[in-house]
Amino acid sequence: MRITVLSGGVGGARFTRGLLALLRERLPDGAGGTTAQVTVVANTGDDLWLHGVRVCPDLDTLMYTLGGAVHEQQGWGRRDESRRVSDDLAAYGLGWEWFTLGDLDLATHLARTELLLSGVPLSAVTARLAERWQPGVTLLPMSDDEVETHVETVDGRMMHFEEWWVLHRAGVPARRFVQVGLDGSTAGPGVLDALAGADVVVVPPSNPVVSVGTILAVPGVRDALRATAAPVVGVSPVIGGAPVRGMADACLAAIDVATAAHAVARHYGRRADGGVLDAWLVDDADADAVAPLRAEGWTVEAAPTLMTDVPATAAIAARALALVDRLP
Amino acid sequence: MRITVLSGGVGGARFTRGLLALLRERLPDGAGGTTAQVTVVANTGDDLWLHGVRVCPDLDTLMYTLGGAVHEQQGWGRRDESRRVSDDLAAYGLGWEWFTLGDLDLATHLARTELLLSGVPLSAVTARLAERWQPGVTLLPMSDDEVETHVETVDGRMMHFEEWWVLHRAGVPARRFVQVGLDGSTAGPGVLDALAGADVVVVPPSNPVVSVGTILAVPGVRDALRATAAPVVGVSPVIGGAPVRGMADACLAAIDVATAAHAVARHYGRRADGGVLDAWLVDDADADAVAPLRAEGWTVEAAPTLMTDVPATAAIAARALALVDRLP
Repeated sequence: MRITVLSGGVGGARFTRGLLALLRERLPDGAGGTTAQVTVVANTGDDLWLHGVRVCPDLDTLMYTLGGAVHEQQGWGRRDESRRVSDDLAAYGLGWEWFTLGDLDLATHLARTELLLSGVPLSAVTARLAERWQPGVTLLPMSDDEVETHVETVDGRMMHFEEWWVLHRAGVPARRFVQVGLDGSTAGPGVLDALAGADVVVVPPSNPVVSVGTILAVPGVRDALRATAAPVVGVSPVIGGAPVRGMADACLAAIDVATAAHAVARHYGRRADGGVLDAWLVDDADADAVAPLRAEGWTVEAAPTLMTDVPATAAIAARALALVDRLP
Repeated sequence: MRITVLSGGVGGARFTRGLLALLRERLPDGAGGTTAQVTVVANTGDDLWLHGVRVCPDLDTLMYTLGGAVHEQQGWGRRDESRRVSDDLAAYGLGWEWFTLGDLDLATHLARTELLLSGVPLSAVTARLAERWQPGVTLLPMSDDEVETHVETVDGRMMHFEEWWVLHRAGVPARRFVQVGLDGSTAGPGVLDALAGADVVVVPPSNPVVSVGTILAVPGVRDALRATAAPVVGVSPVIGGAPVRGMADACLAAIDVATAAHAVARHYGRRADGGVLDAWLVDDADADAVAPLRAEGWTVEAAPTLMTDVPATAAIAARALALVDRLP
């Protein structure tokens, strides 16, 4: 069983952790793992060069979460993190003090930067770093090319996505996202094959605009998703009209999509109608979206989708995979 | 009074700290400083890119020592240093774990790297970093160009100077030093002017081969030193046939110079004979070098030259400056 997941950071990482727990139970390999092969295609559109090092927020969140090193409450970054470096760095007054650069996280950035500067592509760097963390999945950046997301706010300012997201907490309404390098990027090694060769593709409850939307905009990815023989199942990142975490509502607003489970489904679209999904799992709180979506031809179910812990998340993954059997 | 110092790391930094203490006493500015203007031209031949960041060992040692932040016993690096990042980085197994990359020190490297990568030349970066440390001197890198020192060992291996110096503790005899970029380098902004416009130039007890020797080999520096109207006074880095600290003997051996106060003087040479010095201060332990050097025309004195603390070092600086009055 080959499962491919298109993931952003925290939401996608937690979902994938639950999925792995489910697969270890259902398809155990006898050594504590699973015989299923899970490939995670990660968004790299939030990546940035900061103080000379390459920061890849979503890749790191996936690596730490699946490798058992994540700061659980925070959802990203390392457990037992400290800020010796960044506290001292602030004294130089170079800016970006609001961007957390933990000491342990910085070790990852330094290792990545050293490898990148020596000419190793990001995909191979990621594989090298993952050797330490053993995430139990094949972790693929969506592209080896650098993509940088900027935000144009309604008051006409341009800023790096991280500045808008972290410093301004997405509080300044965005007019649009400008993703430098995205149109000219190439899908990373293995990405298109992971879609073509999958038995199931899952779109976890990641940000549909700046995480999954960015992956889908890498030339070739949307076509590969539409062409794959595998069913494509999505889990709504919106519960009861609000993003579960993060500020996906601010991103959805910028592209004129309502923060509602049915609206996100329609934004992705059914493959039968030219979209990218075959099925959609919504939260029980959004059960009223089921009937209208079904009327439009969707395979859709409602279930508890709050990823409160790993067992609960495994159950969500089970409900998502079960949708495959209900496809027409 | 304008004094220019050609400095390596620990020895030059400690000497300069003593010199400043002396000047604050003799030429006070009424605000705890001195009316004398001290310019330090620092060796950058030991600099390196490590894990993607630019490390400038001698500039940092000078900045921390003169800025009151140095790890006193160690002689380099920051006080209250920790290794959160480097301990974690070691788990990625990329090598160079033996090179200490302290957390606080790393903050400096990151700040420097960010500025360098944004196009700021090292001299301006150094001035920017020094705003924080207020070293009380004008701190100039010998060059804005990158110079990288490699060591060819007698068994034919080539390695970065820091690998030979730090990992091997200079224990593998060196055949020669290969300084990539040195011949084509240009003296940094202000360097030649600091020599031409000085009232006194001091060569402190720094490594005569890989510290002062490297500065002298920057095109134009040796000529400027020979042409300046200022007297040039050196302090022996060798006491009683051994380097006071560091492993300068291993460097001297590589260029066939004996580890002896008189041999280092002759290696530098008298300006009257085509060398770079006018006067030479040796330790009392090397008093027997005084007569032979005087016979060769040197202005030379013996004095206690162990830089045990700041007052003792100020006294050494006083003895060095006093040599100026004895020049013929």
